Amino acid sequence: MGAAVGVGLVGLGTIGTGVAKVLRRNADVITQRLGFPLRLVRIADLDTVRDRGIDLSGIRFDADADGLIRDPEVEIVIELIGGYDAARRLTLAAIEQGKHVVTANKALLALHGREIFAAAARRGVEVAFEASVGGGIPILRSLREGLAANRIASIHGIVNGTTNYVLTEMEKTGEPFEGVLKRAQELGYAEADPSFDVDGIDAAHKLTLLLAMAFGAQLTYKEVPTEGIRGITPLDFEAAAEFGYRIKMLAIGRERTGADGRRAVEARVHPTLIPEGSLLAKVEGAMNAIAVHGDAVGRTLFYGAGAGELPTASAVVGDLMEIAREVRRGSRGRVAPLSFLPDHLEPLPVVPLGELTGRAYLVFQAADRPGVLGQIASALGEHGISIESVLQKPAAAGAAVPVLVFTHPAREAALRRALATIDRLPEIAAPTRLVRIEEEL
Amino acid sequence: MGAAVGVGLVGLGTIGTGVAKVLRRNADVITQRLGFPLRLVRIADLDTVRDRGIDLSGIRFDADADGLIRDPEVEIVIELIGGYDAARRLTLAAIEQGKHVVTANKALLALHGREIFAAAARRGVEVAFEASVGGGIPILRSLREGLAANRIASIHGIVNGTTNYVLTEMEKTGEPFEGVLKRAQELGYAEADPSFDVDGIDAAHKLTLLLAMAFGAQLTYKEVPTEGIRGITPLDFEAAAEFGYRIKMLAIGRERTGADGRRAVEARVHPTLIPEGSLLAKVEGAMNAIAVHGDAVGRTLFYGAGAGELPTASAVVGDLMEIAREVRRGSRGRVAPLSFLPDHLEPLPVVPLGELTGRAYLVFQAADRPGVLGQIASALGEHGISIESVLQKPAAAGAAVPVLVFTHPAREAALRRALATIDRLPEIAAPTRLVRIEEEL
Repeated sequence: MGAAVGVGLVGLGTIGTGVAKVLRRNADVITQRLGFPLRLVRIADLDTVRDRGIDLSGIRFDADADGLIRDPEVEIVIELIGGYDAARRLTLAAIEQGKHVVTANKALLALHGREIFAAAARRGVEVAFEASVGGGIPILRSLREGLAANRIASIHGIVNGTTNYVLTEMEKTGEPFEGVLKRAQELGYAEADPSFDVDGIDAAHKLTLLLAMAFGAQLTYKEVPTEGIRGITPLDFEAAAEFGYRIKMLAIGRERTGADGRRAVEARVHPTLIPEGSLLAKVEGAMNAIAVHGDAVGRTLFYGAGAGELPTASAVVGDLMEIAREVRRGSRGRVAPLSFLPDHLEPLPVVPLGELTGRAYLVFQAADRPGVLGQIASALGEHGISIESVLQKPAAAGAAVPVLVFTHPAREAALRRALATIDRLPEIAAPTRLVRIEEEL
Repeated sequence: MGAAVGVGLVGLGTIGTGVAKVLRRNADVITQRLGFPLRLVRIADLDTVRDRGIDLSGIRFDADADGLIRDPEVEIVIELIGGYDAARRLTLAAIEQGKHVVTANKALLALHGREIFAAAARRGVEVAFEASVGGGIPILRSLREGLAANRIASIHGIVNGTTNYVLTEMEKTGEPFEGVLKRAQELGYAEADPSFDVDGIDAAHKLTLLLAMAFGAQLTYKEVPTEGIRGITPLDFEAAAEFGYRIKMLAIGRERTGADGRRAVEARVHPTLIPEGSLLAKVEGAMNAIAVHGDAVGRTLFYGAGAGELPTASAVVGDLMEIAREVRRGSRGRVAPLSFLPDHLEPLPVVPLGELTGRAYLVFQAADRPGVLGQIASALGEHGISIESVLQKPAAAGAAVPVLVFTHPAREAALRRALATIDRLPEIAAPTRLVRIEEEL
């Protein structure tokens, strides 16, 4: 058996504790697969007092992260402190020390990925980040290696467990967003400040990593049009169900040709109506799934827990094992971290939402007066939008009536112009909502 | 850009043609991911005349497989001739020549895997076989690397597209097995001799590979209790649906402790009732999916096309890319082919079916006489089997009445003893059928 590879862990929170657990309890199978052990030699966390309910005997544990990355016994550093600045500083310092880094921090990579990957390439060390998208699902590895022979056509991911949990609960209980979110916060499925999740920022972070892997597209998450789920109402689930759809928060990427004939990508995060018969529609609660369509492989789907102590630790330790193999076999740099070699990553233009063509679900808030539906239909028709179905639910006396419209495929720019006209009508009580429909799943 | 890695292809059938297509049309993305091209330098097939509709310009193409494996330009040999003997000979000869081998041949590996992997280890070459299970789904790679930190608890796979297609069609149309099989043969979804698929042999082959990867269990497929789908009737789908189940042909592996307290595995292939709400139940037609339950990651599922020209080629070329990387990076032997190092593969005992405990669906063919149901129920009760629900459908006058019983969890040995007693009753017209139920999916 070969000598152990020494590992240092910075950040002993939920995931860090999971990593320590998995390394200890699965030490036998890990060694049987690697041919040598992984040894957690050192942990750094500001809180060295709290009892995490794990056995840390034999592991040096203090608050000295800088000492950890300088420790010659540490060959691989696990960064689990989260956030941007401190994580960036630590990661770059570890790389500078010639240490390989494993991280679960998608925010860090979405913001500072370019700098970090470049520093790692210069120093000849690995940066692994499977845990940053889809938790325990080996989706990044699959894009980078298993599906590497494919030209990827599209990606549709449920990559944020919080929003999927909230949407699932809203659908199940018929309760509005706020109440379900509050319960999710009490149960620990949502953060006290839920914006990062429910407004789609976390999903956009993850999508930028998927876009690089799938299309070689080098984008920042701010280039990804992002809409959250705060506007979704119980009525939307009813209407969706009536027409054979469910509502999921999706991160979508698609290979496209831009108006100038050059390569471009579709990239967007928003609540989406998807066919209830699709596998993605069956992904419930806090689970994640990523559907990948490749030109050779066809349609695939990868499903599993997108977060949580042990699922995330599964991915972190999987990365540790991969790097440890490369350390022992001298094969650093075997695989490009973002699947495409750095020369072939390029800042592809994102197709503007207005140029997308698809079906849409529209929610008008109309005064309960004769002729309003006619006005809506005429305005849509004038902009070339044709209606597939209309659903009008009774309203309380005097209240605005929700008019629900499913359109035939239409260009989003035309749709937006029609909605701008309609929303100026005195009979329309509130801005019209538009939820996009994805059929091909 | 680095120098090309030379590839030789033996067997230009459906999958071989797919491989040639993918290597040509995706040469750009393959090179952008690898940093060097893969070059298909030579093809061998007995039929050098048939037009496969692909451009083979620049590739030497003849019937000389032995010449191909000796060709110094060929660094990696793709074995796609199928079957046992010729494939074994060719694979061992290629290894002997110091060539790496990529194969899609699960039958070969299920029968001669031990010999082939040992020869490759001795010679220091790689044998890759992602395409042999689940077609284009990167399931083997995920077990070997992405989920490598896990102690795998169980695997449930729909790994044979033909049987899944037949079962899906039977359910959809209400037609009996024979008619659906005939149509599947006409459409090319089933072979002229369908036994390999519909009797579960192909699935058992694939399961032996999954068992090694997941549990380090070294079994031959003959040790896997295997039942085909020929006995399934349209009535079974109706009864299953009535109680919230669908019927899928599953390959099942589970970590167990044997009666002697030592490690053992559950390993079996048979049609199975599974909850209609599970993701596996939604896998339709010729698609495949493998559910893997790991102690850290929890429940995961990998879905995609399990066969076909391009999906299988996706996996073959993915393997080529992996080996090509290792050739160029000098990291041969980076990962153990069966996930566990050879020392940690062991011929674990298979838990006998009689020792399994689970719910079952039973189909009795009873004479239409008073008291028969009572006799059945008494005989079950005497063996400690308790009934959860009974469904009795009307029969044509004089014909045997199917009595459908769903049991509570029972030990299969007890159940078999009860059925033996019942089948001796004069009122029972045909041997009772038993279909196992898997709840935890």
